[in-house]
Amino acid sequence: MRTKLIDLHTGGSENIIDITAECRDFTSETGGDGLLHVFVPHATAGVAIMELGAGSDEDLLAALRDLLPADDRWRHRHGSPGHGRDHVMPAMIPPYATIPVISGRPELGTWQSIAIVDLNVDNPRRNVRLSFLTSPVDGAGW
Amino acid sequence: MRTKLIDLHTGGSENIIDITAECRDFTSETGGDGLLHVFVPHATAGVAIMELGAGSDEDLLAALRDLLPADDRWRHRHGSPGHGRDHVMPAMIPPYATIPVISGRPELGTWQSIAIVDLNVDNPRRNVRLSFLTSPVDGAGW
Amino acid sequence: MRTKLIDLHTGGSENIIDITAECRDFTSETGGDGLLHVFVPHATAGVAIMELGAGSDEDLLAALRDLLPADDRWRHRHGSPGHGRDHVMPAMIPPYATIPVISGRPELGTWQSIAIVDLNVDNPRRNVRLSFLTSPVDGAGW
Repeated sequence: MRTKLIDLHTGGSENIIDITAECRDFTSETGGDGLLHVFVPHATAGVAIMELGAGSDEDLLAALRDLLPADDRWRHRHGSPGHGRDHVMPAMIPPYATIPVISGRPELGTWQSIAIVDLNVDNPRRNVRLSFLTSPVDGAGW
Repeated sequence: MRTKLIDLHTGGSENIIDITAECRDFTSETGGDGLLHVFVPHATAGVAIMELGAGSDEDLLAALRDLLPADDRWRHRHGSPGHGRDHVMPAMIPPYATIPVISGRPELGTWQSIAIVDLNVDNPRRNVRLSFLTSPVDGAGW
Repeated sequence: MRTKLIDLHTGGSENIIDITAECRDFTSETGGDGLLHVFVPHATAGVAIMELGAGSDEDLLAALRDLLPADDRWRHRHGSPGHGRDHVMPAMIPPYATIPVISGRPELGTWQSIAIVDLNVDNPRRNVRLSFLTSPVDGAGW
């Protein structure tokens, strides 16, 4: 398994960050067939595979504001007001994703991108771990 | 890794399609231990592992109508009215799933099935990619 | 792939059970790099990677009571009142999770734990399957 950490600037507002290019670069360096694994080692971020850039990013953030409101209902009360919701989100938008890779290319659909969903406004930098499980016939990752 | 695309007819209404039999056939062809990966390369579909056929399929569609209403709140506005919700769903019901396989058999619980959840009424056909990562001792996929 | 079933006591109320220690023990026995796979072979339980012990466990259960109410809306009506919601939950909190492992250690973030989310009050015991896909260079799982 080949693995590396990348560093993201997620800024001081809730945000959805496209990491598709980083994922493509990572799997093309090795080539071969296998599984791409994306993981955020943070308790207030998730990974989503979705269309970006045509309104759905803002739609997702709006849906999350509706489903997990940033009010005072949460028991977890560190950080900014309503921050407790950020800690519930990863149960619903998990901090991992898996994507099949063929000949070094993630087999995403035309409209699919790989994105980090980060509601936390108190932490402007994030790590993401990319891992690629390839087959030994390729003489690559294993 | 062994991988193949299957073709599904999902029809012109929101739908939950059982693909458990296709998954079992696929892993039994290779045999051995490993991980089954299911992936839909579409931005408006997801994969769920759940009980089917005892009301829960309709319960899930009803819950999604409640949580992500098909009204005019969405920024993404191509296709049928309310279609923006279809693009938010994959953040919550992801387009992939992983299932452990032992001796060629997915180790599902008694009441678990593997299903494609497709809210999109504008696209009656879908591809699903099945991949099986097996160990080299089995002399199979690797 | 090395794999084993563990047995959990989830009790007679909705519950979130920390299995991080069991996961760490399991991957450290083998060592090496790879992917840890966690799977619950039950149709009313899910796996979440989240902060535990600072209020977020109770926050998640409260959010689920709000999003999937235990009332008579559900078609699936076996067991306790409102039990139909338990069967919808795994579509949103899936019964699997994947975590990268380096040198035998799950690469979780500081505040991340691995938890079983079980809403079902009628079934006090649960199995969880842990699987570890390691690379052949380690001479371990493969």
